[in-house]
Amino acid sequence: MAFMFHRMVVAGVGLIGGSLALSARQHGLAREIIGCGRSQENLRWAQSRGIIDRYFSIPDEIPGGVDLLILGTPVQATVSLAASFLPGLEQGCLISDVGSVKARIVRDMEKLLPHGIAFVGGHPIAGGEQWGVQAAVADLFAGHRCILTPTRKTDGDALEKMGCFWRKVGARVEIMDPQLHDRILGVVSHLPHVLVYALVNTLSRTKIDSVDLKAYCGGGFKDFTRIASSRPEIWRDICLVNRRAIGRSLHDYIKRLERLRRLIRDEKGELLEREFALANEARRQIP
Amino acid sequence: MAFMFHRMVVAGVGLIGGSLALSARQHGLAREIIGCGRSQENLRWAQSRGIIDRYFSIPDEIPGGVDLLILGTPVQATVSLAASFLPGLEQGCLISDVGSVKARIVRDMEKLLPHGIAFVGGHPIAGGEQWGVQAAVADLFAGHRCILTPTRKTDGDALEKMGCFWRKVGARVEIMDPQLHDRILGVVSHLPHVLVYALVNTLSRTKIDSVDLKAYCGGGFKDFTRIASSRPEIWRDICLVNRRAIGRSLHDYIKRLERLRRLIRDEKGELLEREFALANEARRQIP
Repeated sequence: MAFMFHRMVVAGVGLIGGSLALSARQHGLAREIIGCGRSQENLRWAQSRGIIDRYFSIPDEIPGGVDLLILGTPVQATVSLAASFLPGLEQGCLISDVGSVKARIVRDMEKLLPHGIAFVGGHPIAGGEQWGVQAAVADLFAGHRCILTPTRKTDGDALEKMGCFWRKVGARVEIMDPQLHDRILGVVSHLPHVLVYALVNTLSRTKIDSVDLKAYCGGGFKDFTRIASSRPEIWRDICLVNRRAIGRSLHDYIKRLERLRRLIRDEKGELLEREFALANEARRQIP
Repeated sequence: MAFMFHRMVVAGVGLIGGSLALSARQHGLAREIIGCGRSQENLRWAQSRGIIDRYFSIPDEIPGGVDLLILGTPVQATVSLAASFLPGLEQGCLISDVGSVKARIVRDMEKLLPHGIAFVGGHPIAGGEQWGVQAAVADLFAGHRCILTPTRKTDGDALEKMGCFWRKVGARVEIMDPQLHDRILGVVSHLPHVLVYALVNTLSRTKIDSVDLKAYCGGGFKDFTRIASSRPEIWRDICLVNRRAIGRSLHDYIKRLERLRRLIRDEKGELLEREFALANEARRQIP
């Protein structure tokens, strides 16, 4: 059997990294899959479940012959982690990542990497608010979008290979400019997360007599705020690394919210209903 | 069989009014159930499905002997509709409503009604973003909270009777001050609706190159913004009638969001992570 990769390292064996390992194994994409991370316990667990074949914890100890390195850490750590692996990497190794922010990672990786080690930025849009390798499943990416973000400098063969890899695990591969990726995700994903974090904290800080507001939240609110269960560390990093795009979308959003607040305060019923009807219509158009 | 009510009128045969009619019939709470509304087509449909026994459209034509009148219209229309029924109502009639805002309705109803016609403010918390009598089901209220909001002026027997009525359709009845109700719902329900309307409109107005952002929304966003499918007219009215409490919660919310925006802009990673972790913890405590 011809494997696509001989030795694949997944650095950061969490929900995404672990699922990718499982899926790569299921589809016969890598002969050997090695985990790397800070928590021995986590890695041992992943090994015991057959998610990874073996593991190491110190980047220096990366074995020879790695031809695919997947960086699956929070996005602030991606580039520095790559740098720490660099001395142990061989020519021809392909590096990719799964981070939710792309422009800065792609730019810094291109600065970092020597000729002969290619990088392709990637972002599989899957996983929701769960986290941890315990939630990893082989079909996590099936039917979901995976955005790859090459630049003029990206090696064509590497891009093609990563596209093929993601298609084999069932993803719908889409090629996009890294900046454009960050602006789009800044609106459709990062903005809603920030909004919900703020909502849940507003709720928990609001004191109305001695009432526990949480008792009145009900299923709707719980569904609505599910994304506030996402891992704080991951979202801290996303907000910092994509701060420009998120700042811009937050600015637009707050302006729009202020407008609604004024319409409510000034009892502009007709305009208010029009805003709500527009939202209604726009939401209907979401596929 | 002893019916709790002889002749029940449901004014506004939509999701809530229709479900209450179905449920009252199923539990044998009213001997006859009569619909009232503006749309003949809607009322005919409800009659054809056995939701109501008969109907009328002009308040003047309310039949004699009505002992329960449920007001199920958008909250701005509640009191004026009650006023238009008043000439046809007889002593001993009990009026209640199902509106999401209580203080102003309760106050104005108490001013409006003569001695001998009692009002009990009610708010069954059920139904979500669906609307229309086509979505009505007999068990809509089962296991859900119904908040009743009496004041010092509320007739004790009337309150007891409405409490009994709601318990019989399966609701968990809770007694609450009308102002307190509006402040709580202003945070846990009205605020999230306004937020989501603003989010969907921000998304639909954001132009990034020629990209249709809606194509990138995915299931998470769709779940998250489901409440923007709620009926615009209903939410216009809720916002206007509860504008003080909503204004206050919007004010608190925007302040908190501005704080997050500053933390992101100023790259305050530690504080940002703490905010996210607090939200995480608070959400876990939602029952």
